[in-house]
Amino acid sequence: MQMMDERIEKQLAFSLEIDKEKNIFRQTHLSGHGRNENDAEHAWHMAIMAYLLREYANEDVDITKVMLMCLIHDIVEIDAGDTYAYDAEGLKTQKERENAAKERIFSLLPNDQKAEMTALFDEFEDYQTPEAKYAHAMDNLQPLILNNSNDGGDWREHGVSAKTVYGHQSKTRLGSKKFFEITDRIIQDNIRKGNLPE
Amino acid sequence: MQMMDERIEKQLAFSLEIDKEKNIFRQTHLSGHGRNENDAEHAWHMAIMAYLLREYANEDVDITKVMLMCLIHDIVEIDAGDTYAYDAEGLKTQKERENAAKERIFSLLPNDQKAEMTALFDEFEDYQTPEAKYAHAMDNLQPLILNNSNDGGDWREHGVSAKTVYGHQSKTRLGSKKFFEITDRIIQDNIRKGNLPE
Repeated sequence: MQMMDERIEKQLAFSLEIDKEKNIFRQTHLSGHGRNENDAEHAWHMAIMAYLLREYANEDVDITKVMLMCLIHDIVEIDAGDTYAYDAEGLKTQKERENAAKERIFSLLPNDQKAEMTALFDEFEDYQTPEAKYAHAMDNLQPLILNNSNDGGDWREHGVSAKTVYGHQSKTRLGSKKFFEITDRIIQDNIRKGNLPE
Repeated sequence: MQMMDERIEKQLAFSLEIDKEKNIFRQTHLSGHGRNENDAEHAWHMAIMAYLLREYANEDVDITKVMLMCLIHDIVEIDAGDTYAYDAEGLKTQKERENAAKERIFSLLPNDQKAEMTALFDEFEDYQTPEAKYAHAMDNLQPLILNNSNDGGDWREHGVSAKTVYGHQSKTRLGSKKFFEITDRIIQDNIRKGNLPE
């Protein structure tokens, strides 16, 4: 296509590139014992839930920023792939792989938007602001809800114990004490049902 | 699960229900001549694009509202299914099917949030506010970008002509003159390449 100005050309190139996130599959399965969920679906689900459940954030949050964080937080996985929360080996190289991806993918945008999206991504990763903590709590809660609806199938598939799940979910309380309460009930429930060994 | 208060129980029931949107497939195909896209992925893509391209909206928009509209505008298709933009028969019963779905699905939420989400959905459908017009323009642009990247495969599959596409895309200019400019170039480009009969 000719004669488009460079700015919108870059914005559209980025928009087309992120389409690939729909091909990055996670360990979580859809409800109804469905197929594996992909990153784009996960991000969509998180953004809506973040909005509807914002009253349970520990601190006041800029909900637009939270939704954007949810929407973009996995874009780097287009290059770096999904690293399962309980994959110790993958976790060692995750940061390095994701940094290279962040640089390549956000560089498709005009400079001002590259800077904005990179800052947003880094803020999420740094886990310090109320928005980042709440978005992370949602990143934990959303797959938990799906996995719970599937009788803990994702945990059983990976032989995960309740102790490991509690370790991973412990930071949920930094973003939302209420979410951690729900999380605790779900874990206890699944232990009782034999879906999760103590 | 016991002892959850009714409000969050409802919010989580709605959150789980909308997971089903990931199983509603559209006529559009993913880039790289991929599989059909589903509604959740489409909504995710629209929300990010709406944010990044907001400078091209004809009027000032509340971008949070636009993003929410993008995220929820297809939830009714969980019951009503996807109606292809060029399916004349399906379009006749679309409104009725979608109204019933809207009532059932949003009723899972607490009353205040049911009212809020219903109003947001209706505002989108009514096509009157700057936010609705811009969100609709994005609802048109996002699949166009994918289809263009696939050499117009979706049009050829359905034997659609340029005239029909122009008819469907004409309202894009209500939300964004710039998007319509891009749209026009893409259509002309595909006519030239023989992907779209005049």
